[in-house]
Amino acid sequence: MEKIKMDDLVNYCKNYGFIFQGSSIYGGLSNSWDYGPLGRELKENIKKCWWQKFIQENPYNFGIDSAILMNPNVWISSGHVTNFNDPLIDCKNCKKRYRADNLIEEFAKSNNVTIPVEGKSGEELVNIIKSYNITCPSCHKNDFTDIRKFNLLFETNMGVTEDTKNKVYLRGETAQGIFINFLNVQRSMRLKLPFGIGQIGKSFRNEITPGNFIFRMREFEQMELEFFCKPGTDLEWFGYYKNFCLEFLKELGIKKENLRFRDHAKEELSFYSKATTDIEYKFPFGWGELWGIADRTDYDLSVHEKGSKTDLKYLDPITNEKYLPYVIEPSLGLDRTFLTIICDAYNKEVLEDNSEREVLKIHPYLAPIKVTILPLVKKYHTNKALEIYEELCKFYNISFDDAGSIGKRYRRADAVGTPYCITVDDDTLKYNTITIRNRDTMEQEKLNIKEIINYLNKNIKF
Amino acid sequence: MEKIKMDDLVNYCKNYGFIFQGSSIYGGLSNSWDYGPLGRELKENIKKCWWQKFIQENPYNFGIDSAILMNPNVWISSGHVTNFNDPLIDCKNCKKRYRADNLIEEFAKSNNVTIPVEGKSGEELVNIIKSYNITCPSCHKNDFTDIRKFNLLFETNMGVTEDTKNKVYLRGETAQGIFINFLNVQRSMRLKLPFGIGQIGKSFRNEITPGNFIFRMREFEQMELEFFCKPGTDLEWFGYYKNFCLEFLKELGIKKENLRFRDHAKEELSFYSKATTDIEYKFPFGWGELWGIADRTDYDLSVHEKGSKTDLKYLDPITNEKYLPYVIEPSLGLDRTFLTIICDAYNKEVLEDNSEREVLKIHPYLAPIKVTILPLVKKYHTNKALEIYEELCKFYNISFDDAGSIGKRYRRADAVGTPYCITVDDDTLKYNTITIRNRDTMEQEKLNIKEIINYLNKNIKF
Repeated sequence: MEKIKMDDLVNYCKNYGFIFQGSSIYGGLSNSWDYGPLGRELKENIKKCWWQKFIQENPYNFGIDSAILMNPNVWISSGHVTNFNDPLIDCKNCKKRYRADNLIEEFAKSNNVTIPVEGKSGEELVNIIKSYNITCPSCHKNDFTDIRKFNLLFETNMGVTEDTKNKVYLRGETAQGIFINFLNVQRSMRLKLPFGIGQIGKSFRNEITPGNFIFRMREFEQMELEFFCKPGTDLEWFGYYKNFCLEFLKELGIKKENLRFRDHAKEELSFYSKATTDIEYKFPFGWGELWGIADRTDYDLSVHEKGSKTDLKYLDPITNEKYLPYVIEPSLGLDRTFLTIICDAYNKEVLEDNSEREVLKIHPYLAPIKVTILPLVKKYHTNKALEIYEELCKFYNISFDDAGSIGKRYRRADAVGTPYCITVDDDTLKYNTITIRNRDTMEQEKLNIKEIINYLNKNIKF
Repeated sequence: MEKIKMDDLVNYCKNYGFIFQGSSIYGGLSNSWDYGPLGRELKENIKKCWWQKFIQENPYNFGIDSAILMNPNVWISSGHVTNFNDPLIDCKNCKKRYRADNLIEEFAKSNNVTIPVEGKSGEELVNIIKSYNITCPSCHKNDFTDIRKFNLLFETNMGVTEDTKNKVYLRGETAQGIFINFLNVQRSMRLKLPFGIGQIGKSFRNEITPGNFIFRMREFEQMELEFFCKPGTDLEWFGYYKNFCLEFLKELGIKKENLRFRDHAKEELSFYSKATTDIEYKFPFGWGELWGIADRTDYDLSVHEKGSKTDLKYLDPITNEKYLPYVIEPSLGLDRTFLTIICDAYNKEVLEDNSEREVLKIHPYLAPIKVTILPLVKKYHTNKALEIYEELCKFYNISFDDAGSIGKRYRRADAVGTPYCITVDDDTLKYNTITIRNRDTMEQEKLNIKEIINYLNKNIKF
């Protein structure tokens, strides 16, 4: 089995309708990507899995869908307007531009040392660069400008004429939409602690260095849960979610040897955080952060309580205490999960007859197309095949393929991860039986037409 | 049955967790709204219904999910940068601000005359206002400023430093993301005409006069299909989709007496359109546009072909002709559909015993919560009820309610449209049977626990 290279992955995603370059006919737009027919289905299936495990099956957790555009004071209170910056640094010699923290991280990685950068000030970062004598990766000089802070929030103006125009921000994370709705959800659903609020949606960050395909984009999608609990119980819930998130990734079919925890050292933690862990995945370009899980204490609710002058405290109905809940935040990037799944499931296999097959060994529930219906001979079997198509398409996203040999059609289905191929032949016309072929084992079974839907329901569920 | 008033509807949506004022703890943000736990579920269910009927079950149609931020030339080519304007007019006397076209439409409505305004220039609108002697609805003077054009596209800047910053727009419609991916989808999915590309996603318009709750918002969600076909077959497909869209709304359970077509008269049509129809719904504030269905000819593909200098023509494999396909566009607002469904399904009923019940008679598939599990006596039946909860929550979004009398719990379930209540009592412990109660008929049935899932599957599907 061959691990896929990033360039090949981009081509694969384009050719099979997973992901296209954004605005491609106009020469693109820096690091933007559009999801094609198969990509949209896979992305949607990932969302459904997350929602099922984090919201639907969890009696503590509830979902919302808050607006992208919020009152700008939300971002002032949260600290994003002041502190949501990338530290920009330029090489004076070759004029290349870097994120200072990334520059240090790359140096640390290739020299196998640990240098914490999170939460460091610009001055501290400059001192690190000097003390380790870190040079420009491009021209190898150590001659950098000072650090300039670059705010990541996109700005726009809402309202009509100059006098009524308001600067607003595109949200930089979905989490703030949850914090400001803490009371709304608690009251309308009559909730007691602990409870969680989750949502899936677009966020925007004006990154200095987007890249690695859909790993870091300026427009991206998040799946965030904010879990509110009684102070003192927070570290227990932190441990619970750390484990729960890893299990979730394994249930999606991600190989466990490609996953690891990276617990943040004490000096790396944000000043308000009691504990933070990243789940990292081994991408073709190296280990990268997939999931951040943080104990954020009561930081978020307390800044919004102050900023909005609204009492956000919870009245404990048993002890009669009033307090701000602590928050555990598992924050997952949807596009990164997509990339993880494709990287992990893509294979090129050499078969017994020495031919090669491209196969996406993805969880059946995640597969963009669940079944392809193949009439063996176009002339004779198309009508019956269409009958079966029309019945199954009510339940699953399926496709129909009558072009080329059965072998060729199997290869096309394998390449996009379709778990089952159903062939309609003379036996179907005579005995109402079809042949169902398994993507991974390549084994074939005979089934009565009436048995298909139960067979699929049994094998496709998450 | 009592029709709901808009103010009551807003309160209902807030109290039951459907929709909250956006950024409410910060005093809100002009006409922005956040979907709460039940609203998110209902919205998601509407999306699923649309996707099922327009994409999944339709062998011609495919979905995508394109980016909100696109190359700005997309909006220059499409004409939005120049022409996507609201005509702003001020009353010189009382300083009130109006959209000139709305001002005329309101006048026409209350005087029961027809005055087409779509596609009219500012000058033409001013002439209409003068010739009909239309006055300011607030101060009743006829003394208006000239019309100023106000572009509806939100602008933002992408990229880092001044030298590399690019002005980009938040998309004003999802349709353009489809047109620019016409070739990508056609090639990767190896499609022949006719075929459609659909997507669901956020769009943004800096409206002068947002309002009527979620009817007109600056940030909103669309469900758009662009159906590409051979010129000459377009009017047939237009008729097909006109009918298909109306049938879809009826299948969602919208009462047909509250729906009507409004065919655009010839002089109302955009210069490129051969036919346009609105499906209107009778909202509490009057008839309003819900769905626009238009024959857009080859306008969109031709402007993008010119603007991008990319050949977008289709090579007909049968006739060997090369041509730009014509496009039929059914464009539906998701938030408006949400509003329609709630308005249409909300009822206050007086029961036989003269008590009143609030009930949302929504299609079971759309219901945010499918089942509520009710232990008859908390002390005795909670464990068994939780067992049933844990089994069913794998398949459906369900809830658990053990607070108050059964009657009270039924009322709460009715009010949010939950189609089934399952009561767990002594018989459940003894004989494994539960009582399932129907929201609309209020009738109760005994079922064995094992029969529940089939019962639900049969009754909840769309």
